[in-house]
Amino acid sequence: MRAAVLVEPGRIEMRERPVPEPAPGDVLVRVTAVGVCGSDTHYYREGRIGEFVVEAPLVLGHEASGTIAAVGAGVPADRIGQRVSIEPQRPDPNTDETRHGRYNLCPHMRFYATPPVDGAFCDYVTIGAEFAHPVPDAVSDDAAALCEPLSVGIAAVRKAGVTAGSRVLITGAGPIGIVTAQVARAFGATDIVVTDLDADRRALTRKFGATDALDPRTDDVTDLHVDAYIDASGAPAAVAGAMRAVRPAGTVVLVGSGAETMDLPVQLIQNRELVLTGVFRYAHTWPTAVALAAAGRVDLDAMVTARFPLERAAEALESDRTPGNIKTVVRVHPGDDT
Amino acid sequence: MRAAVLVEPGRIEMRERPVPEPAPGDVLVRVTAVGVCGSDTHYYREGRIGEFVVEAPLVLGHEASGTIAAVGAGVPADRIGQRVSIEPQRPDPNTDETRHGRYNLCPHMRFYATPPVDGAFCDYVTIGAEFAHPVPDAVSDDAAALCEPLSVGIAAVRKAGVTAGSRVLITGAGPIGIVTAQVARAFGATDIVVTDLDADRRALTRKFGATDALDPRTDDVTDLHVDAYIDASGAPAAVAGAMRAVRPAGTVVLVGSGAETMDLPVQLIQNRELVLTGVFRYAHTWPTAVALAAAGRVDLDAMVTARFPLERAAEALESDRTPGNIKTVVRVHPGDDT
Amino acid sequence: MRAAVLVEPGRIEMRERPVPEPAPGDVLVRVTAVGVCGSDTHYYREGRIGEFVVEAPLVLGHEASGTIAAVGAGVPADRIGQRVSIEPQRPDPNTDETRHGRYNLCPHMRFYATPPVDGAFCDYVTIGAEFAHPVPDAVSDDAAALCEPLSVGIAAVRKAGVTAGSRVLITGAGPIGIVTAQVARAFGATDIVVTDLDADRRALTRKFGATDALDPRTDDVTDLHVDAYIDASGAPAAVAGAMRAVRPAGTVVLVGSGAETMDLPVQLIQNRELVLTGVFRYAHTWPTAVALAAAGRVDLDAMVTARFPLERAAEALESDRTPGNIKTVVRVHPGDDT
Amino acid sequence: MRAAVLVEPGRIEMRERPVPEPAPGDVLVRVTAVGVCGSDTHYYREGRIGEFVVEAPLVLGHEASGTIAAVGAGVPADRIGQRVSIEPQRPDPNTDETRHGRYNLCPHMRFYATPPVDGAFCDYVTIGAEFAHPVPDAVSDDAAALCEPLSVGIAAVRKAGVTAGSRVLITGAGPIGIVTAQVARAFGATDIVVTDLDADRRALTRKFGATDALDPRTDDVTDLHVDAYIDASGAPAAVAGAMRAVRPAGTVVLVGSGAETMDLPVQLIQNRELVLTGVFRYAHTWPTAVALAAAGRVDLDAMVTARFPLERAAEALESDRTPGNIKTVVRVHPGDDT
Repeated sequence: MRAAVLVEPGRIEMRERPVPEPAPGDVLVRVTAVGVCGSDTHYYREGRIGEFVVEAPLVLGHEASGTIAAVGAGVPADRIGQRVSIEPQRPDPNTDETRHGRYNLCPHMRFYATPPVDGAFCDYVTIGAEFAHPVPDAVSDDAAALCEPLSVGIAAVRKAGVTAGSRVLITGAGPIGIVTAQVARAFGATDIVVTDLDADRRALTRKFGATDALDPRTDDVTDLHVDAYIDASGAPAAVAGAMRAVRPAGTVVLVGSGAETMDLPVQLIQNRELVLTGVFRYAHTWPTAVALAAAGRVDLDAMVTARFPLERAAEALESDRTPGNIKTVVRVHPGDDT
Repeated sequence: MRAAVLVEPGRIEMRERPVPEPAPGDVLVRVTAVGVCGSDTHYYREGRIGEFVVEAPLVLGHEASGTIAAVGAGVPADRIGQRVSIEPQRPDPNTDETRHGRYNLCPHMRFYATPPVDGAFCDYVTIGAEFAHPVPDAVSDDAAALCEPLSVGIAAVRKAGVTAGSRVLITGAGPIGIVTAQVARAFGATDIVVTDLDADRRALTRKFGATDALDPRTDDVTDLHVDAYIDASGAPAAVAGAMRAVRPAGTVVLVGSGAETMDLPVQLIQNRELVLTGVFRYAHTWPTAVALAAAGRVDLDAMVTARFPLERAAEALESDRTPGNIKTVVRVHPGDDT
Repeated sequence: MRAAVLVEPGRIEMRERPVPEPAPGDVLVRVTAVGVCGSDTHYYREGRIGEFVVEAPLVLGHEASGTIAAVGAGVPADRIGQRVSIEPQRPDPNTDETRHGRYNLCPHMRFYATPPVDGAFCDYVTIGAEFAHPVPDAVSDDAAALCEPLSVGIAAVRKAGVTAGSRVLITGAGPIGIVTAQVARAFGATDIVVTDLDADRRALTRKFGATDALDPRTDDVTDLHVDAYIDASGAPAAVAGAMRAVRPAGTVVLVGSGAETMDLPVQLIQNRELVLTGVFRYAHTWPTAVALAAAGRVDLDAMVTARFPLERAAEALESDRTPGNIKTVVRVHPGDDT
Repeated sequence: MRAAVLVEPGRIEMRERPVPEPAPGDVLVRVTAVGVCGSDTHYYREGRIGEFVVEAPLVLGHEASGTIAAVGAGVPADRIGQRVSIEPQRPDPNTDETRHGRYNLCPHMRFYATPPVDGAFCDYVTIGAEFAHPVPDAVSDDAAALCEPLSVGIAAVRKAGVTAGSRVLITGAGPIGIVTAQVARAFGATDIVVTDLDADRRALTRKFGATDALDPRTDDVTDLHVDAYIDASGAPAAVAGAMRAVRPAGTVVLVGSGAETMDLPVQLIQNRELVLTGVFRYAHTWPTAVALAAAGRVDLDAMVTARFPLERAAEALESDRTPGNIKTVVRVHPGDDT
């Protein structure tokens, strides 16, 4: 099969590799669409993210959809042919975290496109049968792939406690900020304020659920009195300012990454009894993601601003620098497209 | 002022009464719309609901909207003229329940149209300033009145733990079943199954959020595997059957009233660790109700199938027997209507 | 090895069986102590519990401790020699329930001494390595075995939301009622009222944490205003009466089994917004159980009122009829005793 | 009546003031014991805490017990003579926070000994009847006063989610650290590790529930893998180090005050999905505090290391500098002592 392999920072090569065999409990998926994530781009350019270093050729891509092509032992054969969205993680069932249902925190996790585990910029991948989530026809291949970033938004919005009538502030209008705004709306939030430095991005968010879009340099958020604040920027300055917008006993969820530490207003946290947490990937989000996408409660297709065939994976990885880009998708088997 | 007074079971008289004075902390509200609830009809026909007996002339009506006409001491005068939805309860701030935020369970509660407390089928009522909730122009007078049954739905859906992607079963397609289906959708539920014996009501629910409507006599719900089941029928047979539709660790919320006891499947509750509870009115629902109505996430106006002026309150109370009736509203000051 | 096998209702035979091989991920445990549970007695006398029918010779016993004698592939060899308390269940890691951390509700569960799965009245058993919980020297072999009923109490007390200062009512002063009283105390409850028809049992509970013991025939519990009520009797009459003792928004947990349905006061559930649920075995209780036993927060040894060697398993199963009996333990390898 | 009044930083004067009249809903309390808190000492020495500035003569003291001497309108006269522990706050019942049960976060709060509201270093004080909590004989006057710092510990331990079997880390072995260790034990925690720079304080904590006491300069806490971490030091260095001891999905509660901001390990918060919050005083803690003290689950009397009569309030405020001091109590009416 074909695989787009990162051989050194900035260089992707197309290589032939054997089609993997599905292990017992696994399925083999013929990949259709793979979204490009900021972490893919980061590995591509820098060759590392924090402690994770690319030391051997690596296949990137962890936002993937496809069709089940074969099943391993113990998996019903009638799953062959099923269109699926891939949850790109393999937790160890025997760790404390997994057993408590927090499998995303499993210390033995193997995750797509995280060294040394290969990802999905290739013709075929394997995954645990329970992590290949069936999608109905109403969900396109692109949307099925983007159930992954949608899951990040769902994980964040759940931890934020967003529900019907919630007032929510989101800092950062990149792909995660946009998908989080959509998720907040799908959870019933009625006030969704997004901040970003870029005017075009701000304008865009209104198409994706934001009821207001502010410029943090000129608009004061202090009096917003939101129930929940979600950071999708990773910018320390954004976080410190935005936390003042949260009502007493409100929540703060840090999604954006980058800083190892931040100078946080602990006296504010104490005086208002704010609850601050972060998300590390997701658990139990896929059924919700597929249901929201299928019911039209979120629009993932509208987020796709560029598409490339597998052979042009490198261009796909560079496309985040294109003005107006939100989300790029690599179409591995364009002929299969829904 | 005019008041439609229940003087004995089945007999309403229009009487003149003095306009009440707002006490400190209260507002005086010029009533515009008042919904008719099953409990009003029950008091009207039977003169009692359980232990609550109408022993003196009583003004019915507890689903009310209006305009603030005067304020008591300590209430800002600029509230005069504000359009409001009335939360028709007066908890005692000094009881354990109120102090814990569960003010609906306050043992000293005074509630509209519950003997001996008068309700809103009259020109003016008073209520605590914090229980007169401002509504924006986007919410009509009728919708502002119907924030009360909407609140019942919100209370039920919250206790049921409904969230984005939830699968919900509702038994009973009367006004509360219909509004609950709408609320479930607003909370993000993507599968909303309603059951009712009446085919017309079943058809109707599809306009209000139901994704499926079943006849419990012919459709088996056992395999629905719902996350939450809400009873809006009060019928023991409905409840016992529907509980089998709930997945392990799912929730059951009893909203419909009538039976003092029910024969419930406790072995099922144990084997699946179901969580069963009930709702008694509501607390902290109005801001959510107004936000959902204002954002168009629920459609209350579409539920209104009949309107009567105050003088015809008795007809309004009889109108539940009209085929196709969902919700009747008494328009107290039609000239004010939005 | 020796095994005490139930060959037909009321008849136990000692048989020789091969020592089992630990499968990958399993450990082989040399059994030391096994508690006798009401379900063992029920299978012994009736040959069935509800849908579970003993159709082939069955080894009873699911409250077991022992020493790791061998390990299967993938389990560190240094676990050999470890004293352990056995959590007698094998959930399937790939079901929805297990993945959510509710592994006790796994539909594919294999549980000790539940047909057709053999239990622990024998020399050796196997179990998943993660379900063989190490115990420190401070926990005796008997206590290690009784971490199983302790776990039932922990599961119940958790669901009841018992915490420091809680007021708790427990109906039924059998072994589960007694252990639940101890657990409630360990969770910080300061008022623990137990009811039972038997005066001796009532007296006994005061040694195990009860602050009061009442006779339901003569003592009215209605005004107790407890935060949580846990039934350990399975008696419908006890439950209906005791639920009136629960404060608004309080909890009801049904542990006692027997009735398939109960006539429950649903109007009370609604008017007080009580939350009612049940427990089905337990999940994530063992670390807590071992910690409480090791720290002396519960006293399991004091609950043991009779001991028998393996050869006298039938007598052990009959011993619940001995006056004053609380808990009987079968000592499989008395020479190992701590 | 006598009052010890702070007239300028470092100067307390005894003054005669009129005995206050209890307003409707209030009680008048003849004060018996008043604990000295770090905030009293801070106001005494500095004349301010952050934005709160002592601009007029102020009576300090907010940890108080006494006997009800008179009641305001609406309060049952049979409360006169009752021994009480005072919850020293007066929330406004009509704010959002109070109505939700989070009355400690009420923006209109009036709190004892916080400018311009007087405290309890005087003969008589008034408080809302519901905030004068009856204590049984088993609770001494000193202990009744110390239900206030006990409440801080309860608030922290609740937010930390401590329960039976929890592993807890506490940084700082001052009075709040010590009382928090006791509370953690009362909630069922079985591993309670306290860190402090001072060896004497470390030794002391073992008498108050700590199962281990570490020196943060020499002992590494990284591998403790605690469920909950509570800071009672306010020291940024302590917090940053101790957070590494928390297991995935564990909790961090900041109680110690001082820093307005802290450089916190947000990547750790994200990667482990830690939940961090703070406490601002307390709500709904007194019934629990009194119950724990009455049942002997915490020992408040053993924390009292110095006592002074009211006339020597200044010495009491200086006594925190005495080696070995934990808690000082001012005895206002020594003749009443229990």
